[in-house]
Amino acid sequence: MHKTVTIDLVESVLEANRGLALQNRALLRAHGVRAFDFLGAVGSGKTMLIERLTELLQVRGVRVGAIAGDVAGDDDHQRFLAAGIESENLNTGKECHLDAHLVEHAMENIDLDLVDVLFIENVGNLVCPADFPLGAEKRVVVISTTEGDDTVRKHPLIFREADVCVVNKVDLAEPVGVDVDVIEGDFRTLNNHAPFIRTCAKTGEGVDRLLEALLD
Amino acid sequence: MHKTVTIDLVESVLEANRGLALQNRALLRAHGVRAFDFLGAVGSGKTMLIERLTELLQVRGVRVGAIAGDVAGDDDHQRFLAAGIESENLNTGKECHLDAHLVEHAMENIDLDLVDVLFIENVGNLVCPADFPLGAEKRVVVISTTEGDDTVRKHPLIFREADVCVVNKVDLAEPVGVDVDVIEGDFRTLNNHAPFIRTCAKTGEGVDRLLEALLD
Repeated sequence: MHKTVTIDLVESVLEANRGLALQNRALLRAHGVRAFDFLGAVGSGKTMLIERLTELLQVRGVRVGAIAGDVAGDDDHQRFLAAGIESENLNTGKECHLDAHLVEHAMENIDLDLVDVLFIENVGNLVCPADFPLGAEKRVVVISTTEGDDTVRKHPLIFREADVCVVNKVDLAEPVGVDVDVIEGDFRTLNNHAPFIRTCAKTGEGVDRLLEALLD
Repeated sequence: MHKTVTIDLVESVLEANRGLALQNRALLRAHGVRAFDFLGAVGSGKTMLIERLTELLQVRGVRVGAIAGDVAGDDDHQRFLAAGIESENLNTGKECHLDAHLVEHAMENIDLDLVDVLFIENVGNLVCPADFPLGAEKRVVVISTTEGDDTVRKHPLIFREADVCVVNKVDLAEPVGVDVDVIEGDFRTLNNHAPFIRTCAKTGEGVDRLLEALLD
């Protein structure tokens, strides 16, 4: 019986989140904001990819906002501010993922009429965020080559539902002995619709293709 | 009211887990098994560290067992078997962490009288496993230099409660521009009792010191 209560509660939490995500999406559309949710483990390079994407967008006169999600601290938020991004810091305290309710409140502190593209950087985690859509139009899942070539196999759910898959730090693939083709093969067995993009955020390699995939 | 129910339920889950962890610990003691829980993000190098530690232990005639925890797949389990480890694969399905109940069942499939040291490799995740002790005598938290130097600041809870902290892939610190001293400084602000050990599992550097810290 204890188990039934737990499952009902989990279902109602997930359903409530889905409803709030739809509300967030409607709000973003109403303000003409295109939002992208970046997921991936700690150190996969989500922050630096957002910094590089922002450089490309700013050159085109596109105004960028971001929500920096982390359990604690404001490291990523400070980096976003330094990059000229309208950033809001979002600490979850103990929670292992963002949810649509947290994002709704973070958006209250951003003037959405001054933002064209909003990046939402989720908590570094490849498991829990999968269940919680936030209202963004695309979910981008980022892997680093340094995680090894078995990351996709270990986390099928999040890759199955990805709208874009990025393998970052391709410059380190050889030193760490990882074959990106293996990762791509694993990804394709789960997901045959999402673009698979290789990047090196440090040098900017592939970031233009990622931007194309986002705005497509 | 919904919230009160949730919190009560979470508390009762955590309390039940703590009770089961104590039972696991007693069972391990009764069989003379020393168990160590390895936590860290995907790709931090937990599996390879366990492989290297096992080599050092096998030379001494110590019999090694392992529980390979992952959301899906058996990559780590297969590596443990190949290393001559008495291994049990433990897939959580969707759960983002091991718990004492899962470990209890995994141990039923291991002949504890044939094992002296048991490594429990948790799901790759720096948030959720923190709340769930498993019954091991020490919790080892592993970071990779490739995660950047802000990993500790972003996840204070798990580092505060670590019994041993390992920074792995020190050979990549320079290429990725990470200063391990910064990580150690952050760690010491949270935790002044646990050993802080620098390793390169690939070359074996520092693994002897890690083994000493475990068996201390």
